[in-house]
Amino acid sequence: MTSSTLELLSTHACFGGEQRYYRNDSREVGLPMRVAVYLPPKALAGTPVPALVYLAGLTCTEDTFPTKAGAQRLAAELGLALIAPDTSPRGAGVEGEAEAWDFGVGAGFYLDATQEPWSAHWRMESWLLSELLPLLADQLPIDGQRLGLTGHSMGGHGALTLALRHPGQFKSLSAFAPICAPTRCPWGEKAFTGYLGADRSTWGAHDATELMSGHRAAPYPAGILIDQGLDDKFLAEQLHPHLFEAACEAADQPLTLRRHEGYDHGYYFVQTFMDDHLRHHARQLLTA
Amino acid sequence: MTSSTLELLSTHACFGGEQRYYRNDSREVGLPMRVAVYLPPKALAGTPVPALVYLAGLTCTEDTFPTKAGAQRLAAELGLALIAPDTSPRGAGVEGEAEAWDFGVGAGFYLDATQEPWSAHWRMESWLLSELLPLLADQLPIDGQRLGLTGHSMGGHGALTLALRHPGQFKSLSAFAPICAPTRCPWGEKAFTGYLGADRSTWGAHDATELMSGHRAAPYPAGILIDQGLDDKFLAEQLHPHLFEAACEAADQPLTLRRHEGYDHGYYFVQTFMDDHLRHHARQLLTA
Repeated sequence: MTSSTLELLSTHACFGGEQRYYRNDSREVGLPMRVAVYLPPKALAGTPVPALVYLAGLTCTEDTFPTKAGAQRLAAELGLALIAPDTSPRGAGVEGEAEAWDFGVGAGFYLDATQEPWSAHWRMESWLLSELLPLLADQLPIDGQRLGLTGHSMGGHGALTLALRHPGQFKSLSAFAPICAPTRCPWGEKAFTGYLGADRSTWGAHDATELMSGHRAAPYPAGILIDQGLDDKFLAEQLHPHLFEAACEAADQPLTLRRHEGYDHGYYFVQTFMDDHLRHHARQLLTA
Repeated sequence: MTSSTLELLSTHACFGGEQRYYRNDSREVGLPMRVAVYLPPKALAGTPVPALVYLAGLTCTEDTFPTKAGAQRLAAELGLALIAPDTSPRGAGVEGEAEAWDFGVGAGFYLDATQEPWSAHWRMESWLLSELLPLLADQLPIDGQRLGLTGHSMGGHGALTLALRHPGQFKSLSAFAPICAPTRCPWGEKAFTGYLGADRSTWGAHDATELMSGHRAAPYPAGILIDQGLDDKFLAEQLHPHLFEAACEAADQPLTLRRHEGYDHGYYFVQTFMDDHLRHHARQLLTA
């Protein structure tokens, strides 16, 4: 196992804490990866704090969440760190990797690809779970035993699937306008065909609705929070929250799925409900 | 006088209000200009509300403030509209207009250029004061008699100079890391030489420190608020807040100039102190 390094690229004072950008020369991905970390004042004072991991959507980078989501103010107050990784490998040089906005660069879907040529570098799940999060907990004042997980759109898919695939790894879970049933929508079908192959029997292990359907007891008894805008142009074709809702009901998984009239898919929607998500995670992470 | 039109380009629900983007086919500029407007819930319900005008810095657009400054949450609560105009004409086709990041496109300096070839379109002061703000007050639920003015960096210069050049037009004033004495810094010398010509005797009318020095009574008796980061790499050479501070003292102008250790020039600094600025303006605009 090659060692994994964390290099500080820049840091910016923000609400008494620091918004930092790091480079991780990743052994899992085999390329330099980027992650943004917000450390609240309490962490800078030396106390390890719980962290909320935010997975961003298609076309986004590690910079999207810290720039646009408006989470630092309340995170500073609550004493929560914020971790925002990039959304895919970059610079792999795979032919066609940047030709589509919904596949390849900026579209890692938070899984390990099994198909050539993607399988060499597109290892987002292993990067996050086996490398990046342990590294951050090791090197920063972050308590790796108290992690919450959230995300937006493709990142909402990532949050729901990673949390359900790795029980106990995350203490709290939420999502903004997540892709809830990727095996049944165009984005998911395209990505899974490319990354996992044409054999659909392998896909269900990365589909939040199918994963939830496999549970007999609630994996998140304290509840999952999902916000969804009703003017979201991707809602009908791509997101399918009603399927995840039904799976939660069947598994006795408490779910708060809030549908908001007038809200679209963008960061004006995300920032509007960010404080509620931070408080949802803080309730579970700060009393754990 | 040609009529001036306001065309809605997009709108996004945000904290119960709406973040809107407009195009204004400007008669003053002679080109299409853009402006972002946030309307709080109270305005959408039909009550004209006071507005805070935010002028952005070099390289920015009308999208910078609504995306990065995190002002909508508290503006919604306070019942303040937010107006963020673009920073220069675009598409004029002036030779070399986009060659420098600190002059020409994205660098209008909020004045009317007197020198060819800039004088044809670079008429930011007339656009804002004589065209855009009256148009917005006429067509939107915004009370044009209750406007506050703020800005960042070059936009801080714009806020201070426009407020001092047009007494009574703005009821409240603040700035984030403003260029306080453009006649005595490289950014200002370059811009004023290009837009106003080599004759320095014309420059003082657009220099906040010189404008304040001409006052014998406080133009903003309720006080001006300025925040400045001490890790701002532009502080020593470009910004000179101490000169404006001295001019305020000589004019008996109450000034709260807060210097913040560790903070840089960017939007992580701006968002940290945004709520204080919103409350500063609300105190004067909501009781007016």
